Order: sequence, then C-alpha cells, then structure tokens
Amino acid sequence: MTLSTAFTRLFGVRHPIALAPMGGSAGGELAAAVSRGGGLGLLGAAYGDPDWLARELPIVSQGTGPWGVGLLTWGIDAGVVERVLEHGPRAVMLSFGDPGPFAERIRRAGAALIIQVTDLEEARQAVDMGADVIVAQGTESGGHGARHGRSTLPFVPMVVDLAVPVPVLAAGGIADGRGVAAALALGAAGALIGTRFQATAEALVHPSIATAIVEGRGQDTERNRVLDIARGSQWPSRYTARALPHRYLDQCRGREAELAADPQAQQAYQEDVARGEVPPLPVWAGEAVDLITDITDLPPAAELVAALAAQAEDALKQAGKH
Amino acid sequence: MTLSTAFTRLFGVRHPIALAPMGGSAGGELAAAVSRGGGLGLLGAAYGDPDWLARELPIVSQGTGPWGVGLLTWGIDAGVVERVLEHGPRAVMLSFGDPGPFAERIRRAGAALIIQVTDLEEARQAVDMGADVIVAQGTESGGHGARHGRSTLPFVPMVVDLAVPVPVLAAGGIADGRGVAAALALGAAGALIGTRFQATAEALVHPSIATAIVEGRGQDTERNRVLDIARGSQWPSRYTARALPHRYLDQCRGREAELAADPQAQQAYQEDVARGEVPPLPVWAGEAVDLITDITDLPPAAELVAALAAQAEDALKQAGKH
Repeated sequence: MTLSTAFTRLFGVRHPIALAPMGGSAGGELAAAVSRGGGLGLLGAAYGDPDWLARELPIVSQGTGPWGVGLLTWGIDAGVVERVLEHGPRAVMLSFGDPGPFAERIRRAGAALIIQVTDLEEARQAVDMGADVIVAQGTESGGHGARHGRSTLPFVPMVVDLAVPVPVLAAGGIADGRGVAAALALGAAGALIGTRFQATAEALVHPSIATAIVEGRGQDTERNRVLDIARGSQWPSRYTARALPHRYLDQCRGREAELAADPQAQQAYQEDVARGEVPPLPVWAGEAVDLITDITDLPPAAELVAALAAQAEDALKQAGKH
Repeated sequence: MTLSTAFTRLFGVRHPIALAPMGGSAGGELAAAVSRGGGLGLLGAAYGDPDWLARELPIVSQGTGPWGVGLLTWGIDAGVVERVLEHGPRAVMLSFGDPGPFAERIRRAGAALIIQVTDLEEARQAVDMGADVIVAQGTESGGHGARHGRSTLPFVPMVVDLAVPVPVLAAGGIADGRGVAAALALGAAGALIGTRFQATAEALVHPSIATAIVEGRGQDTERNRVLDIARGSQWPSRYTARALPHRYLDQCRGREAELAADPQAQQAYQEDVARGEVPPLPVWAGEAVDLITDITDLPPAAELVAALAAQAEDALKQAGKH
C-alpha cells in the first residue's frame, strides 16, 4: 500500500504531509527538510518581513523537492507576494483573511493556490476562488486560528464534501501517524502539521521552546487573545491563539477587554520580556502536543516526515483490527 | 475486510459501534434496534427514574443481541444499579463522576464496566478501576461533557496509549462512517455515537427535535451552562452541554453567574416552556450535526448501524487514495 492522494499527485511528493507555515519558526531549513523528506515544505513567511525572506527564501528554494510559502492574508506587506513568486515556489498558502486580492497573481505565476479555512463559509469562498488545495483547520491547532473555530474531526468531512474535487488537507490536532491516518479516513488528501515540526532539529525556535513542546500537555494549552493583546500584536480580534501555560495567561485570562484598554499592562509585558522574566515569544502549541515526546534528541524533519507516513500507513492497515 | 476489534470481540457484536446512552432519548426501542443492527445498544437511563426504567428495560432486554445501560454517575439514585443489573445487561456504562462506588457491583454481576472519560486523569482512574472499555469523549459531542473538554482527534490516541490493552471507544464529532473510520485509525476499538441516533425512527424524541437535528449546523452549536441553569437542572458546574440555537442562549450567553443568581429568570424559563414559547427540552447536538441530512425519512437505527459500518470499511479502503 502506498498513500497516493490528489495532494501527493498534484505536487509530486511522496507523502501526504505538509508543513504548516508557522510564522518565523518554519524557516528555510525546516521547509527544505520537509520537502527533502517527501512532504511539502511551506515557509512560514507571516507578513513577509524582507530581511527574513531574503535570508530564508534562498535556503528553501535551493533545496530538493517542491516547496511553498505561507502568508498571513490579513497582514501581507506590499510587494511581498511578488517577491515570493520571483523565487518560483510551487505553492503559496494564504491563511486568515480575504485571499481575493492575491489569488489571481499567485495562479498567474503558475503556483498552486492553497487556502486555509476555518469555517464552511470560508471553504465555499475558497472553492469559488479556484483554490487548488484547501486546508481545513480545526480549533485544536496550535497558534492562531478562528475565535469560533470548528473541531477537526467533524469539520474535515464537511469541507471535503463541499470542496469536491479540490483536495483538502486536515490541520489541527495531528502530531503522529495515527492523526495522519485519521485525516485520510475522513476523506482528506493529507495532513498539514505544525506543532510537531517545532520540535525538530531544523525548526527556527529557541531550544527552550522545543523543550516546552516535548514536555507540554494538551490539556494545559488554551486558546484566547490574552498573549496577542499583552504583546501588542496586530492580529485582528477574530483570531485567537492556542499556547502553552504562560504567566500572562494566568494573570489576564478572561480579562481581554480590560487588558486591551491598559497600555501600562502591555508596557509591563515588554519590560518583563526585556528582563527575561517572560520569554520573548509565547509557546504556541496545539492540543496534540501530548503526542510529542522526543525526550532525548529532536528528530531531523526529513526523517520525521517519512516516519509519520509509515505510521499512517500502518495505522490504516491496523484500523478496525485493534 | 471486516472490522473486528477488541470491542466487537468482547461483546460479540458485528460492528464497532455503540449507541451513546443519551438520557431519555436512547430508550428501549432505540437501544434494541442498535443491538439488532449489530452494534451495542445502550439505554440512556440517566439518574435511573423508576417509571422510565420499568417501561424501557423490558423493551431492550427482550431484544436481540447484547445490550447495556448508561447511567449518570454523579446523580445515580439509590438502588438503581441493582435494579438495572437484575435485567442482565451485558454492560453498564458510567459517565460523569466518580465510578468508584459502583464499579465493583457491576463487575461482580458479570456485566462489562464501561467508563466514559473526558481527560487523561479520568482515563488513568478508569484503568485503575478495571474498566473493561473506556470511552474517550471529545468536546465536539452533543449534550453534556466536561467544561474543559479535549477535542476527539488529539485526545483519543492519548487515551489509547494510556489504556492498553483496554479497548477505547471514541466519542464526540462522529456522525458518519468516515468518523467511525477515523476513530479506528486513531487506534480506537470503535465509536460511540449519539446525535446521529437522535434522528432515527426509534429515538424517544419529539419529531421537532429530529427535524432540528437534520436541519442544524455544527457551527451553530455551542457548549456552556446557560440552558442547564435556566431550566434549573442539577448538573454540577463542571459539566457544560452542547446544544443547537435557543432563545435563552442568545439572551444569557456569557452571563451564567448572573442567571444562576436570578430565580425570576429561571421562573420565566418555566413559564415560557408552559406557554409553548420555548421547547420542553433543549436540542442537544454535537458538532457533527452537519453530517445528518436525512431530509425525507428518518432511518431505522438497525439499518443505520449497518450503513455506518459499511461506510467506515469503505472509508478505510479509500483512505490515502483520494
């Protein structure tokens, strides 16, 4: 048995696995490693910071295998789409916001258009816009997502039915081969995986973040706007983010409006970061963080892709026989 | 291929599907129909109302195939476990609360002990208590569940790993064969399904509830305590319930404490029910309610069980080939 889906055939990749383009941490080395390993590596370009792109784009574009770039639709800086397309990505993924202003440019350049959606209305719009791949993101996912998000298990089959014949990737709550297998059983053409790849040798994260992910528990993650507000982030209020425990979550949980109206509290956060009392970045993590338990060594991402695919094949073979 | 799991072998049933013992609506006819169809029918006995049990127990116990009874652990009335055991159920399922006081009596009577859990701590306790089957319930589920619930997709594999060799059923967000297939891919030995069976010919629900479920949308369901408080329910505050839209949800969302302290508002709810302006019962429904679309005729539950199992087999065969 081989996992051969509309997604693997579209990109000519060996495994139905894509790297979630996690802003900042899915850098060139990680995206290239995922592609080399047989998945689709997606650079986490966020708004498209020029210095970051200038550093990371050459790394991924000189790698082996198809690759792409993920952008935060609501915050794309001017000229970024063009700059990215100059490097010849096989795909551009747009998440969180109206893809309308960018869709045509991406398709005209010959790149596949991947649109991430968080509800059925967005899924319908993505189909209408001619998305080549739709990512159905559940609320279990780490980092940012919709305030009123759907859970992956019931959400994915709805998007699959609505999008036919456009291939759908499941995202959110997937950190091992069983999750990949479940995504495929739901009718998805693959899985888009984030948190699991933060704890790999190539992720652009401080070692303390990888450690926190290996040690973190799904039940301790929580999704709200507290950390975005505290750190003065520009994320629109319709998006929340799932993170591991953090002092400011304990201090400000349920008091988002109050925090937003208190510049002093936001100033205090910056001072705490400067003093090293609070880490520079929250540890974004999905509910499946439990399943990440590489106590000793972080795996190279290319090996991880192959291992996830092998586990998924095995899980499908064993399904209904346990 | 046949779906043969530790669950089907334990109970000698044909399909890895159990009926969620939905209080009141999973009556004798429905439980018997699920058992006759090759699943495990579980009577929704809630606290164990004597009149209800006297009516429904004979119906299910005179049916074909193994059957069981589900009880709400925190609210079991005196003598109920004994009364239930006299009818010779093959299984008793305990949900929501400490199963300790009842576990031994159930096992001594020769019934299988099924314990539903909503977090890893409860899962560990269920293993320690000698559960024969553990149900891992995700927050997507309809009706009652943990306030701080886990999502089914990332939760199930954690419980599977922790419970080995005890078989685990996945619950929450499963309403079609793809969901059953996903549960099996995650390593579960089957799926426990609720909402889908509310819209069957045998469910003990008012026709308007079945209609609401067929027409309902997952994105419109919400989980909180508003309706429990408004209707003066005794459910402990650590449990919330997922329901379809309701006037009192719109009026009181986010103001649970206020509502709880306002006997007049609770009185108004009862008056609204008496006047027929608010339905006698909220429409409990899980996020997978989208997938229930039998516009014309509600299916007989026995046929539904077979159809779900056939769809699940097909979904596993097609997984990784879409």
